[in-house]
Amino acid sequence: MNTSELLPEVDVIEGVYLCTRLDLPELFSAAMAEKKGLRLYRPEDVPDPARIRFALVWAPAEDAFDAYPNVELVQVIAAGVDGVLHNPSLPENAVVTRVHDPEQAATMAGFAVWHVVWHHRKMGTYLKAQQDANWSRYLIKTLKSPSLITVGILGYGLMGKAIAQATAALGFQVLVASRTAGESEAGITRISGDDAVNEVAAQADILINVLPLTPQTRNVLNAKLFAIMPKGAALIQLGRGDHLVEEDLIAALDSGQIGGASLDVFKQEPLPDTHPFWTHPNVVVTPHEASVTTPEVVANALENAINDVAAGRCPTSIVDLKTGY
Amino acid sequence: MNTSELLPEVDVIEGVYLCTRLDLPELFSAAMAEKKGLRLYRPEDVPDPARIRFALVWAPAEDAFDAYPNVELVQVIAAGVDGVLHNPSLPENAVVTRVHDPEQAATMAGFAVWHVVWHHRKMGTYLKAQQDANWSRYLIKTLKSPSLITVGILGYGLMGKAIAQATAALGFQVLVASRTAGESEAGITRISGDDAVNEVAAQADILINVLPLTPQTRNVLNAKLFAIMPKGAALIQLGRGDHLVEEDLIAALDSGQIGGASLDVFKQEPLPDTHPFWTHPNVVVTPHEASVTTPEVVANALENAINDVAAGRCPTSIVDLKTGY
Repeated sequence: MNTSELLPEVDVIEGVYLCTRLDLPELFSAAMAEKKGLRLYRPEDVPDPARIRFALVWAPAEDAFDAYPNVELVQVIAAGVDGVLHNPSLPENAVVTRVHDPEQAATMAGFAVWHVVWHHRKMGTYLKAQQDANWSRYLIKTLKSPSLITVGILGYGLMGKAIAQATAALGFQVLVASRTAGESEAGITRISGDDAVNEVAAQADILINVLPLTPQTRNVLNAKLFAIMPKGAALIQLGRGDHLVEEDLIAALDSGQIGGASLDVFKQEPLPDTHPFWTHPNVVVTPHEASVTTPEVVANALENAINDVAAGRCPTSIVDLKTGY
Repeated sequence: MNTSELLPEVDVIEGVYLCTRLDLPELFSAAMAEKKGLRLYRPEDVPDPARIRFALVWAPAEDAFDAYPNVELVQVIAAGVDGVLHNPSLPENAVVTRVHDPEQAATMAGFAVWHVVWHHRKMGTYLKAQQDANWSRYLIKTLKSPSLITVGILGYGLMGKAIAQATAALGFQVLVASRTAGESEAGITRISGDDAVNEVAAQADILINVLPLTPQTRNVLNAKLFAIMPKGAALIQLGRGDHLVEEDLIAALDSGQIGGASLDVFKQEPLPDTHPFWTHPNVVVTPHEASVTTPEVVANALENAINDVAAGRCPTSIVDLKTGY
C-alpha cells in the first residue's frame, strides 16, 4: 500500500512530475516535502490519475498529459515555456505558469556579464598564456574603453533587464530591443518596434540574446542578422536553441564576420559530441546552465500558483498564450 | 640640431619620461603630440636638464630624478603611486599626481566581476569540460544564489566603488572596508575603522583587494587573514604585489582554506616563469592588466595637472603624501 493513500485526500492536492530530460523528483522532492498541502508523484506512482490536478514539468513527452484529464495547472520549472506551450496533449483549459525569479535573473546577469568581459577583454588569451607561464601584456596597447563598446540585448523581460543594468554598471553602452515601447532606464537605450532586433544588432559589438522563443523569434539569429552586425562582433546566445541557425553562425565565425560566440543553448541538447561548436577556437560552449533557479523557489512558485488557481485568481507568473511567454 | 631647439622655449613646457619597465615614449608619444604646449623627451634626448619641469613616470629608477633639479610635477601614468612616493631622488617639493579615471575604474570593475563570477560559478569547469566535448551540468545541483554570497572589497576609492556597484548590481551581498567612515550606498555595506579589513575578510566568500600600498597595508593578505576567512573562500588580488605574502597564500590554497585565487599583481613582475602560481590548479594569473587607462586620458591628466601647478592651484589628482595615495 502506498503511504500516500493513508493521508486524508481532502487536505492534499495531488500532482505529477512530467519530464523527459531531468530527474525532477530527485531535484525537487526535498523542497516539495515542505509543502504539506501538495503531493507530487512520479507518473508510475500516481494512485489515481483522475485526482491529479497539477503538473510540475520540463520538456514533457508529447502525450505526457493524456493520462491526466483533470490537470488545471501546469507549472514549468524554468522561465522559458516554449517546450510546453505547443505540447499536443496539454489540457485546453490548463493554466500554464513559469518561474519569475529575480535571483535567477541575477544569476543570469552574472553569467552574461562574464561573457561580455570574456569577449571585450579577450580573457581566454590570459588563460592560454598562463599555460605557458607567459607574462604577455596586450591590454595596454589594445584596450577599447567600455564606453566605446556597445552591448546589444535582445529581449527586455526579467532577464534582459537584469543583464542591461549589470552591463550598464560596468560602463558599457547598452542598447536593448524590446517588443513593447517604454521608458529607458539610466544608461540603457531602449528600441522597440518591428525592426528593433535589427537596429540593435547593427550597432552591437557584443550581442546578447535572451528573447523568448515564439514563431516570430525562431531562427532570428541568422546569416542576415550577422551580416549587418559590426565586423568581428561577438554573440552571447542565452535564449533558446531554436533562435539560432547554427550553420549560419559557423560560416560567420569562419569568415570573421562574427569574432567570437558564447553559446549556452542548442538545437539539440545535450550538444552532440561531434558538433563543430565544441572545438571551434572562438566558441565557448556551456551546457544550458546560464542560470537556474533553486528547487525552493520553484516549490514556492508552484504553491502560490495553486493557491491562486484554487481561489479563482490569475497567477502572477501565468504565461500569455498569445505572446507565448 | 634637435628640432625642438627651433621651437620658441617660452611656449613650451618641457618634461621627461622616466621608467624602467615600459617603453613610455612608444605608448604616449602620439597622445602627447596633441598637447602643443608640452614637450616630452626620452632622458637621452633632453636638450637641457635644467629646463625639465615635469616627468611622466612609471617605476622610475632610484636615481631617475637626480638629473632634473627643477621638476615641479611628477605625473604617474596609473592610479597606484607606491613605486614613486618612496623614490629617494624624488624632488622634495614636487607635486605628485596620479590618474583618476572613471573609465579605468569601469574597466577594473569588469575585470573584478569576471573573476567574481569565475569563482562563484566555477566557470573554469565549463572551459575544461568543453575540451572533452563533455556536456556536464552541475549548477542545477550546486548553485548558491548571489544573494547568499558575500563579496568583500578591501579599499573604497574610485576602483573599490566601481567594483562594489557592479557587484551589487549582480545581486551579491557587498561588504567594503574603507579607511574613512561614510554613507553606504544601496546594496553596499561599508565598514571602517582599524579592524575593517578583518571584519570584511571574516565574512567574505570572495575577497577583492584594491587597497593602495602603504606601510599599513603591506603584507595585509597573510596567513592570519586567510585563517579568519570562510573555509574555501576565493581571493581576487588586484592591488599591489606587496600586499600579499605569497607563500602564505600557497599554503592556504594547498590546505583548502582558500579555495581559489585570481592574481594580477606580484612581488616580482614579470612573475618568474618557475613561480608556483603559474601552475597551481586553483590560481588564475594575469599580467598586471586588471585595468589600464588610455594614453589620451593620461595626456589629459598631465596637461590639467601642469596647468593647475602653473596657476598655483592644487591638482585634483594630487597624491596625499601622508596617506600615500
